[in-house]
Amino acid sequence: MLKWKLHTPEGVQDILQKECAVKREIENKIAYIFQSYGYYEVQPPTFEFYDVFAGESGLIEQETMFKFFDHQGRILVLRPDITTPIARIVATKYQQIVPPMRLCYIGNAYRYDEPYQGAKLREFTQAGIELIGLNSSEADAEVIAVTIHALLASGLKDFKIDIGQVAFFKGLMEQSGLDEEVIEKVRVLIDSKNSVGIKELLEKYEMDSSLKETIVNLPSLFGGIDVIDKVEKTTVNDVSREALLHLKEVYGVLLDYGLEDYISIDLGMVQSINYYTGIIFKGFTHGLGFPICAGGRYDNLISEFGKNLSATGVAIGVNRLLSALESQKAEFTMWHVDSLIHYDEKGRKVAFQIADELRRQGLMIATTLGNKSMSEMIEYAKMNHIDGIITVVDQENIELYNVVTGEKITTTISNLLHKGRSEMEEKE
Amino acid sequence: MLKWKLHTPEGVQDILQKECAVKREIENKIAYIFQSYGYYEVQPPTFEFYDVFAGESGLIEQETMFKFFDHQGRILVLRPDITTPIARIVATKYQQIVPPMRLCYIGNAYRYDEPYQGAKLREFTQAGIELIGLNSSEADAEVIAVTIHALLASGLKDFKIDIGQVAFFKGLMEQSGLDEEVIEKVRVLIDSKNSVGIKELLEKYEMDSSLKETIVNLPSLFGGIDVIDKVEKTTVNDVSREALLHLKEVYGVLLDYGLEDYISIDLGMVQSINYYTGIIFKGFTHGLGFPICAGGRYDNLISEFGKNLSATGVAIGVNRLLSALESQKAEFTMWHVDSLIHYDEKGRKVAFQIADELRRQGLMIATTLGNKSMSEMIEYAKMNHIDGIITVVDQENIELYNVVTGEKITTTISNLLHKGRSEMEEKE
Repeated sequence: MLKWKLHTPEGVQDILQKECAVKREIENKIAYIFQSYGYYEVQPPTFEFYDVFAGESGLIEQETMFKFFDHQGRILVLRPDITTPIARIVATKYQQIVPPMRLCYIGNAYRYDEPYQGAKLREFTQAGIELIGLNSSEADAEVIAVTIHALLASGLKDFKIDIGQVAFFKGLMEQSGLDEEVIEKVRVLIDSKNSVGIKELLEKYEMDSSLKETIVNLPSLFGGIDVIDKVEKTTVNDVSREALLHLKEVYGVLLDYGLEDYISIDLGMVQSINYYTGIIFKGFTHGLGFPICAGGRYDNLISEFGKNLSATGVAIGVNRLLSALESQKAEFTMWHVDSLIHYDEKGRKVAFQIADELRRQGLMIATTLGNKSMSEMIEYAKMNHIDGIITVVDQENIELYNVVTGEKITTTISNLLHKGRSEMEEKE
Repeated sequence: MLKWKLHTPEGVQDILQKECAVKREIENKIAYIFQSYGYYEVQPPTFEFYDVFAGESGLIEQETMFKFFDHQGRILVLRPDITTPIARIVATKYQQIVPPMRLCYIGNAYRYDEPYQGAKLREFTQAGIELIGLNSSEADAEVIAVTIHALLASGLKDFKIDIGQVAFFKGLMEQSGLDEEVIEKVRVLIDSKNSVGIKELLEKYEMDSSLKETIVNLPSLFGGIDVIDKVEKTTVNDVSREALLHLKEVYGVLLDYGLEDYISIDLGMVQSINYYTGIIFKGFTHGLGFPICAGGRYDNLISEFGKNLSATGVAIGVNRLLSALESQKAEFTMWHVDSLIHYDEKGRKVAFQIADELRRQGLMIATTLGNKSMSEMIEYAKMNHIDGIITVVDQENIELYNVVTGEKITTTISNLLHKGRSEMEEKE
């Protein structure tokens, strides 16, 4: 046998029956929320030209992409995200866009280094929305509100969306006069919540003492909306002040949505600041060391494809969400087979009629297909969480067996189908 | 701008809003049929080690696969089909399998040369089932029956499933004593329905004259079940006779399903005979030069992964099905946004409450997000197939505008929400 025939590559997985049913259920619930806010799904291809993702304001590092060549020697990549292809679509596939344009997606993306449950997941499912053509607090707040409703619909409890504003940090850095190399050091230190490190680093540099204090305190500037009030008084540069004002506005809209309980403010959120141009947010829940979603405003991405359009978006990590739901012991309603149906050849046609009718009534019916004894069928049913066994001898001899109670009823096709139908009518 | 930034590679496509909604709708309908027969979905990874697909009884040629390297230099491929990964899963992921095991999938596969509407589609969606662990006519018939019901559920009309049996051809070839090279020539000639070519080719070879006649006639041995009766009399080798008997059995089961109108017999179906080991079938509909589905029995595939298990399966080509439905002018029920909701800042909270409540009632509500005049909103609504516009001034002043009729109603929040609720109750 070939060496790798029985293996799957690192970071990809087989999603088996039960997990798959739960995943589909969650995805459908999220998709329904997206729809109910007016977001239409699009599906870009799984692989694209490398050039599509090679932009200056790209979110994804070249080394994390899966690359290969087409027959003409051009570089293709498995899409490392879905927002970038949608930016390409928005810029190239429509004659004219009258905002707001609302798009969503559910699909897989591929990266070498996506952290997941302590390991790396190289193929992962993202469900996200993009709100295109508007640059306003209302638009930002809508994307956050839809995110919260999608997470709630999935069954997630106890989560927070941390909201920051990249322009706040950018304004501070402009005011500080630090050069790019130092700014990057500061950014990394803030990201690792290292206030002592920032203090040490900044000792060498001359700047306004209250500015220096604000930068050193950035890692601890998170919590309720009062964080903004606190820092507002000492912030003097216009860019940072406007960023704070904007954050307050977004928070105000979220108050009207009645979603303030799911929000916290984090002024020390300084990741991906080349990609994002305004609001930036991440969702966290207990028992999971990574964000379950990430989003924000990216006003420069679509213009890379030749059209100047503002946008805010979010991507929910479906695999991470599933992990979180599992660790929260969320209960899922999963479909399952309702009944086995068993027959000998002379009962076959009748059995098919019964099965067809029950399926039409919304039941899931699996035929046994083979010579199984009653005890084998019961064992099979229990193993597969099936509650009923229908044995068809002929039109006049049909046995219904309840696997859970052991109850047995003998009936005829006319009784059975009539009963089925009247049960349906009662439901209506 | 980078050269390929605005392009997508040949053979892949952006599926935009309307088409995407229709595709999801069709996929959901097919998935529901699969479920109702007891098939559970699994999701293998998008890429796997090349070794997984490099089997002797593989269906897919090496040159048609998208290949690339992982960081360790091992060859990965984008899955060229989904049946092979499922065979790997079945052989490696379960301690014990009690047949029947029913699995299904809906996902994309990747090949360089998949014909589609005169062009090649290199990424395409397949929806399929695998019935594992049984080698019987009943099992074969179930897979064909589920296929027919899935196609019917999608809205397809006027289609036929052509059924053949690869062992019939194999038996004839064994009996003929022809060597492999000549057999391959015969196979290709049959596949292109070239009876004259077969006759010329076989002139050089000695064999029983009725056998020769049968082989020459293979391209025309299709139609109703009587095709089998006709050829049965002259078929003397056991392998071919058993194949015919088996075909008749499968047909008999399909009669009991009441599906005979969708079936035709094609003894000249000789493609993929290394992969398939028994029944083989393809679905055709008018206006489409390619099959919309293909399936059959493959009893040797799972054993390549170390477990000896019979199986029958089918893959429906979702993109081709969509083309067929379009050319048949099938009507689709598509979701769409029901109403726009518009507000000034003081009406915002009330507007969100109304939108929330209407969404809870199952309506799709999009906010306008911005200062649009009434005529701009009407234009936007018409462009986006939205029938209603709700304008919220405050709790006491809410205007409902019907874009289709031009009708206008002024109401209050208590009236509106009460009315919404009672309408829902009437529906129940």
